[in-house]
Amino acid sequence: MSDDPLVIFTPSGKRGRFPVGTPVLTAARKLGVDLDSVCGGRGICSKCQITPSYGEFSKHGVTVEADALSEWNKVEARYDDKRGLKQGRRLGCQATVLKDVIIDVPAESQVHKQVVRKRAEVRDITLNPSTRLYYVDVQEPDMHDPSGDLERLHTALSQQWKLDDVQADLHILQIMQPILRKGNWKVTVAIHLGDSENKPRIMHIWPGFYDGTIYGVAVDLGSTTIAAHLCDLQTGDVIASSGVMNPQIRFGEDLMSRVSYSMMNDQGAEEMTLAVREGMCGLFTQLAAEAGIDKQLIVDAVFVCNPVMHHLFLGIDPFELGQAPFALATSNAMRLRADDLDLNIHQSARVYILPCIAGHVGADAAAVALSESPQTSDDLVLIVDVGTNAEILLGNREKVLACSSPTGPAFEGAQISSGQRAAPGAIERVEIDPVTKLPRFKVIGSDLWSTEEGFDAAIAQTGVTGICGSGIIEMVAEMRMHGIVDAPGLIGTAEQTGSTAVFADGRTNSYMVYDGTENGGPLITVTNRDIREIQMAKAALYSGARLLMDKFGVDKVDRVVLAGAFGAHISTKHAMVLGMIPDAPLDKVTSAGNAAGTGARIALLNSDARAEIEEIVRNIHKIETAIEPRFQEHFVNASAIPNAVEPFPILNSIVTLPTQTFNTGGGGEGGGGGRRRRRG
Amino acid sequence: MSDDPLVIFTPSGKRGRFPVGTPVLTAARKLGVDLDSVCGGRGICSKCQITPSYGEFSKHGVTVEADALSEWNKVEARYDDKRGLKQGRRLGCQATVLKDVIIDVPAESQVHKQVVRKRAEVRDITLNPSTRLYYVDVQEPDMHDPSGDLERLHTALSQQWKLDDVQADLHILQIMQPILRKGNWKVTVAIHLGDSENKPRIMHIWPGFYDGTIYGVAVDLGSTTIAAHLCDLQTGDVIASSGVMNPQIRFGEDLMSRVSYSMMNDQGAEEMTLAVREGMCGLFTQLAAEAGIDKQLIVDAVFVCNPVMHHLFLGIDPFELGQAPFALATSNAMRLRADDLDLNIHQSARVYILPCIAGHVGADAAAVALSESPQTSDDLVLIVDVGTNAEILLGNREKVLACSSPTGPAFEGAQISSGQRAAPGAIERVEIDPVTKLPRFKVIGSDLWSTEEGFDAAIAQTGVTGICGSGIIEMVAEMRMHGIVDAPGLIGTAEQTGSTAVFADGRTNSYMVYDGTENGGPLITVTNRDIREIQMAKAALYSGARLLMDKFGVDKVDRVVLAGAFGAHISTKHAMVLGMIPDAPLDKVTSAGNAAGTGARIALLNSDARAEIEEIVRNIHKIETAIEPRFQEHFVNASAIPNAVEPFPILNSIVTLPTQTFNTGGGGEGGGGGRRRRRG
Repeated sequence: MSDDPLVIFTPSGKRGRFPVGTPVLTAARKLGVDLDSVCGGRGICSKCQITPSYGEFSKHGVTVEADALSEWNKVEARYDDKRGLKQGRRLGCQATVLKDVIIDVPAESQVHKQVVRKRAEVRDITLNPSTRLYYVDVQEPDMHDPSGDLERLHTALSQQWKLDDVQADLHILQIMQPILRKGNWKVTVAIHLGDSENKPRIMHIWPGFYDGTIYGVAVDLGSTTIAAHLCDLQTGDVIASSGVMNPQIRFGEDLMSRVSYSMMNDQGAEEMTLAVREGMCGLFTQLAAEAGIDKQLIVDAVFVCNPVMHHLFLGIDPFELGQAPFALATSNAMRLRADDLDLNIHQSARVYILPCIAGHVGADAAAVALSESPQTSDDLVLIVDVGTNAEILLGNREKVLACSSPTGPAFEGAQISSGQRAAPGAIERVEIDPVTKLPRFKVIGSDLWSTEEGFDAAIAQTGVTGICGSGIIEMVAEMRMHGIVDAPGLIGTAEQTGSTAVFADGRTNSYMVYDGTENGGPLITVTNRDIREIQMAKAALYSGARLLMDKFGVDKVDRVVLAGAFGAHISTKHAMVLGMIPDAPLDKVTSAGNAAGTGARIALLNSDARAEIEEIVRNIHKIETAIEPRFQEHFVNASAIPNAVEPFPILNSIVTLPTQTFNTGGGGEGGGGGRRRRRG
Repeated sequence: MSDDPLVIFTPSGKRGRFPVGTPVLTAARKLGVDLDSVCGGRGICSKCQITPSYGEFSKHGVTVEADALSEWNKVEARYDDKRGLKQGRRLGCQATVLKDVIIDVPAESQVHKQVVRKRAEVRDITLNPSTRLYYVDVQEPDMHDPSGDLERLHTALSQQWKLDDVQADLHILQIMQPILRKGNWKVTVAIHLGDSENKPRIMHIWPGFYDGTIYGVAVDLGSTTIAAHLCDLQTGDVIASSGVMNPQIRFGEDLMSRVSYSMMNDQGAEEMTLAVREGMCGLFTQLAAEAGIDKQLIVDAVFVCNPVMHHLFLGIDPFELGQAPFALATSNAMRLRADDLDLNIHQSARVYILPCIAGHVGADAAAVALSESPQTSDDLVLIVDVGTNAEILLGNREKVLACSSPTGPAFEGAQISSGQRAAPGAIERVEIDPVTKLPRFKVIGSDLWSTEEGFDAAIAQTGVTGICGSGIIEMVAEMRMHGIVDAPGLIGTAEQTGSTAVFADGRTNSYMVYDGTENGGPLITVTNRDIREIQMAKAALYSGARLLMDKFGVDKVDRVVLAGAFGAHISTKHAMVLGMIPDAPLDKVTSAGNAAGTGARIALLNSDARAEIEEIVRNIHKIETAIEPRFQEHFVNASAIPNAVEPFPILNSIVTLPTQTFNTGGGGEGGGGGRRRRRG
């Protein structure tokens, strides 16, 4: 055994013996310890900070003496002077090993830090960005051995960073020569490290040591909203998050009306492509302004979206997605450049769009799969991303199935007489008094029930403006629970229901929620037509899930994950009363928040996750609901509240639903089960 | 040995036995015989035409009977009906083998035909385009197994053409879906087959069988002229050739004045980049119009140019090329897309720019090397591409050296008092009468000597307008041969020279060539300053060549190749009298025409030649004349006509040059050897 000092790194536990005088950074590299460095050990970047531990460590069988590392040197002193080095920290490239030592690598000095902190049931995500910074020392030109500046930069990258076969975008060539000279032949380059389609490529260049960072954006391009996170690619931190309305809304609220617009209007698809790209650029401008950074420092972008948005964003006419067999132009992941899509970030920023699962199950569903990892789940998980279209995943380690189901926009408050988007003033929580059968509610922006003192004052600013998606779900479920609506979906008369809030409204009855007309406000009611809309939406959702369960050969699931912003606000009990989701223990129904957005962020921060999701998607079994006869059958059954045939035993152990029906012959039975909504 | 029929292909001589009924195309593919097919044997494209040979062939030991192939079938009959099949021809995919047979593959049915027919001393070039057409049958979409249209197209390419890992530009995705449907799931695709940087990529797509062809352009981007050949990538034929003035001329005649313009003017480089790209687009429009084709069918483009043009075309400021150490931004070959350079051909047309050899030896010199192959020459060859800058290559199988030398524009008629570009009316041939010492000449546009009857009538249209480059060389050489100019470059007096054409012109003498003033025409004379300009230009050229000879360790070369348009018109004897080129047997001084343009065409038509020239350039030894002290020495010696110290024994065996000198003390000695011209 060598007499060289023993170096033990924590938390990795990697250890090895190195000659006296070996820099800690060198030892770390030789052992494959994850210790960052942008300047390559030149004492400039300070990314390689480490903390030596002194004393006796019986666990490691090592005693670390006070002089185990070389003395504080002038590079460290200068850095400490200028920037301040935390107590106990050393620069790994400056401190050399003299005696046995234990070196702790703090999280911020690790390249592959854990960054996306998620709920317990899903694994952590490791930072592994596609683009990194490298400081290099380039040889000056020599007339005796003429070679291009770029070729000498390549040689430096190869020799100093073992980065071979690196290419450069044309714009790098256009700006490089004065930068090399300004930096006195020392430059920092941002390099996209390549992927399955592309070799490593220089994306940007700065003179000398670039002391800043580079950014990426993870974008969830929804039909209604475009939401993005701006992330620091060196730390993985989210620097800013923002969202804008999708400007395509002016061409149609739901996807199918946008597809129709493109069919009915020459240049319709082009107009929508232009609109969404402009919206995207506006969002990037907004994010960069919020974070106080230069948009040109955004060098990587990941997008998730449904197939129609996918095609419109890429400039592909979505015509084929509007009709069977719903053929995507491409289902694979896309690797593009920002200027291919006229984005206003760094001109050669890399764009990654997650793969689509099928013609109606898009990259957003793939992102949910990446975030929620059904393929690694021991128990059988149903993941539902509720939006205008619901994407549904069902699976475990054995296999994963996916489908989409055309819920329509009712869950977003659209096509509901008093419906509205979630916004201050919208009713989001509802309770019906078991005795009076009268409603009370809460609106977004206030924590008070409408029956509580101070409610009017609290909402004076916004008023009560309508009912949002989660509000309408609670409303219909409460109406069902308290005998205002029967299982087939009919609102009883005031007499039948014993509620003075019910009033005859043409051929059917409606339920009065709030009368603001005295103060010039709205009259908020629930009509029987509203109930029908919700029935169709929830039946579509349930029957998609049920179809996957058939295909999986099960009649119950272990847990349910509700993804999407909507999922975060929904009351699981009420959802179950409606029969939106299969019967399951309420504590096994959880919300994953914007799982599609999280998936996008994972793919942004960990480039390995890109190959991973492509593999996952290849292995997902796609089920097309439109051609499955059982889907229709499930749909008809699921039109009832909660369901005409399914027993829902767990739900029944919690709530007892009234059994009377209000049908007096003709109309209303089955709640619209025969009317299958067009996709969208 | 099998009883299967023997199939012998000519001219390859490849042979094999195949079961009765094997299509000839299948047999050819199995044997690796070069037999074209775009439609993959579906009887559509007719590219696989072959000619069976009947009778006894003792050379092959085979008798081919009349029924050796299957009978003419209806596919062939239909094709013959519609298009006409040449006598004796069959379609290789339709005719099947029944008995022993000899099959000739005519040149037009070979993919890898010989196309660039060159002079005997240089090898032939084989067609092997970067981009080819493939007809494929794509599976229709299936809801049960959803996959993108592109993915099914990929599968078809893989299964039907063994083309794997093919990518598609975004614009293909944007146009593909209706084309697949219009072609009833049969399409023709143009695929760029990839290179060292890029994977194979679909560039264009047509519904059904595309009966047309695709094109490429080979461009020689000169300081003065942009010349291009439009080539059919399937046949290798040049469809049209054209040239335009480089619009950058308005920023400066020579390269160095353009570099200066960029230094002196903000945006100067950008202006010049815009100008040259616009000129290029104009040229492409002109070529396409001339050939009657759609510019969008131009899918490949190869460019050769000197380093300054290279940088300006790419949008790189040529600042660094204007000063030592003359650092190129990049010396490697460039692989770009048409839209990177704002070219008006197919938007994702591939652009290949040959590598530069050094800061003053550009991609044009590389193209000359590709065309002239000094690296495969058994004898030592000096290749000189004479332009505003001369590129000089010297080498054989052992090694190749290269340099450039700043000849200036005198050889193009610039900076000469009566100089002009080669155009009708310009004096291009000169003889001085040994007795009268008076000149006679020919002008471009007429074959008559100026002393011959009918000359005035013949030139009435153009008049005599000036002296072009080759004319000035003959003129000065003739003046030297006939004692009007002495070895140091001084024009003697009328008395000293015995010529009445000499007249005192300020402090020196001038020589009267043509007096058109009576008819309002020009007075064409050769001044002593003109002699000085030519001396400097030829000294620069010679001393570059001589320096390479020093470096090679030789004092003579076996042969000299003059490349460039200028080289094609030069009189070798006169060039040698001037001492422009080293002493060599006159029949060993040949003209290669526009070798740079030929090199571009080779790289366009044979994509393997791209790797080849990159390898050649890596192995060329670059000599920078500016830092070689011997260059100055050679330059001073070479200022004399033909040379102050070199013996020129071969020249002296042909011509006896007068030895008198006219110097009467002071001035003129050494002919401007001390004034080194700036590069340009």
